[in-house]
Amino acid sequence: MYALKVTALAGGVGAARFLTGLSRLIREEELSVIVNTGDDIKLFGLHISPDVDIVTYTLAGIVDEEKGWGIKGDSFRYLDMLKRYNTSSTWFNVGDQDLATHVYRTHRLAQGASLSEVAREVSHSLGLKTKILPMSNDSFETHITTPRGSMHFEEYFVKDQCRDEILNIEFRGASSAKPAPQVLDAILEADRVIVCPSNPIVSIGTILSVNGIRETLQQTAARVTAVSPIVAGMALKGPADKMLQRFGWEVSAYGVAKIYADFLDAFVIDVKDVKEKSRIEKLGIDVLVTNTVMKSLEDKVSLATAVLES
Amino acid sequence: MYALKVTALAGGVGAARFLTGLSRLIREEELSVIVNTGDDIKLFGLHISPDVDIVTYTLAGIVDEEKGWGIKGDSFRYLDMLKRYNTSSTWFNVGDQDLATHVYRTHRLAQGASLSEVAREVSHSLGLKTKILPMSNDSFETHITTPRGSMHFEEYFVKDQCRDEILNIEFRGASSAKPAPQVLDAILEADRVIVCPSNPIVSIGTILSVNGIRETLQQTAARVTAVSPIVAGMALKGPADKMLQRFGWEVSAYGVAKIYADFLDAFVIDVKDVKEKSRIEKLGIDVLVTNTVMKSLEDKVSLATAVLES
Repeated sequence: MYALKVTALAGGVGAARFLTGLSRLIREEELSVIVNTGDDIKLFGLHISPDVDIVTYTLAGIVDEEKGWGIKGDSFRYLDMLKRYNTSSTWFNVGDQDLATHVYRTHRLAQGASLSEVAREVSHSLGLKTKILPMSNDSFETHITTPRGSMHFEEYFVKDQCRDEILNIEFRGASSAKPAPQVLDAILEADRVIVCPSNPIVSIGTILSVNGIRETLQQTAARVTAVSPIVAGMALKGPADKMLQRFGWEVSAYGVAKIYADFLDAFVIDVKDVKEKSRIEKLGIDVLVTNTVMKSLEDKVSLATAVLES
Repeated sequence: MYALKVTALAGGVGAARFLTGLSRLIREEELSVIVNTGDDIKLFGLHISPDVDIVTYTLAGIVDEEKGWGIKGDSFRYLDMLKRYNTSSTWFNVGDQDLATHVYRTHRLAQGASLSEVAREVSHSLGLKTKILPMSNDSFETHITTPRGSMHFEEYFVKDQCRDEILNIEFRGASSAKPAPQVLDAILEADRVIVCPSNPIVSIGTILSVNGIRETLQQTAARVTAVSPIVAGMALKGPADKMLQRFGWEVSAYGVAKIYADFLDAFVIDVKDVKEKSRIEKLGIDVLVTNTVMKSLEDKVSLATAVLES
């Protein structure tokens, strides 16, 4: 165990896998996770926070590990019934147990609670001591413009499975979104800040776009380390590679390092990308080369160890 | 089959059982059911219409017949999970499939649809041609005052299982509640109006308290027949007997007949109550004596036949 206070910036599945390893190495209560809420979506009046739930379920040990989201062993009887009433907006896979989280969140928000308060209540109820911090309590939605029009990120990602060409990405609410309470403090007071291997544009990019977060990352005394989500020129999961390309970034670990260069102290890249090491170092960033592809729990713990040692 | 246009006034389980029999005797599209919404309750932000759902599920053939409510074979994984987040307001038994109805209804109401529109959409989706008409689209809640204070009817009924003494019953919203569209027309245009064997105070009494419904029952040219919910001085189900007693009504078929006397043409009472026949007839009401206790489908069809012949 490392006696370190760690704050992680996280998207969904990739981040959650990495955090599983990290959570084995530090005390639960010493870990804070700032989570993307740009994927948050209202469906049938229910406020769903996909990334917050993925991270919470994963750290609570109840995630469906094969899918990476949802609760293991969950059933889908609610959704099957809902499809009898409506067939057009039932593409988001909500499990029966998972639904309790969405109903509880929606109800608490209607009562005036914030996303932060709900995240704390849910995670405590599931036995977690780790601080789960939604990046902002303000409305923030990522929308994707494709040749078929503008749609919510989850619609592009889940319903259309990233099929369409991306013309533009819009962070709705970013200009007025304030960091949630404790978010900036978590960055300032940490011994180590870790940017998880998540999509640098729609998972980490959203967090960085919340007023004050990027500046605080530049200012913190904590060492800031990121794990590359790009390995051998491809995203391990999701549309990060297509997105980097669309916006003129090089689709490589180096491309991601450039996006983070203003606040990054160290970058952990995959052994397949060892040739990029010196280019990244020229950005003033320390580079650690290791295996970043996480299959087993052992992989996750090894990678987290490397990051803490970086 | 009878070539009759029939409109029924209905509460929950007892009414639904009776309607199962009735629906075998007339064409589906000739039946309209005006349903009590005084039991409607908001729990975790979801609008639940217990009686509307019981009637709809029963006529659609998907009700849990043993319980009388909910969907047969439904699971309760949502509710079990919700109990991890909140233990105080999770007493209402919402099944996973059942929940889809509540989420759909709540969402459509938020979009501006009425209870009537939702009832039509849900029943059509479940393949029903019968018109399910919530009594009113306006807010209407039955509250029960007990020595422990005032509570929603469902809290008294489901959570506390009618344990406490009833001091008062309040129909919140009754003074301003208007009948939903088609409700008065359904009473005026029917060949026969049937008051189902439901609680005369909190199921039928609520319907009668909606502005204009009682008057329309007095005016309609249709023959109005009720089935007694009291047999041998006791309610077959629920707290009707306690309620009648509390408000000074005789706890008997005769007591119920007196409540309905101003609009009733015929009353169907149980063979056990044959001795009340002449007293009820003195109220100017025709009386038919038969078996009113419905166990088998045959019982239900026999009773419905007797009512149509009355």
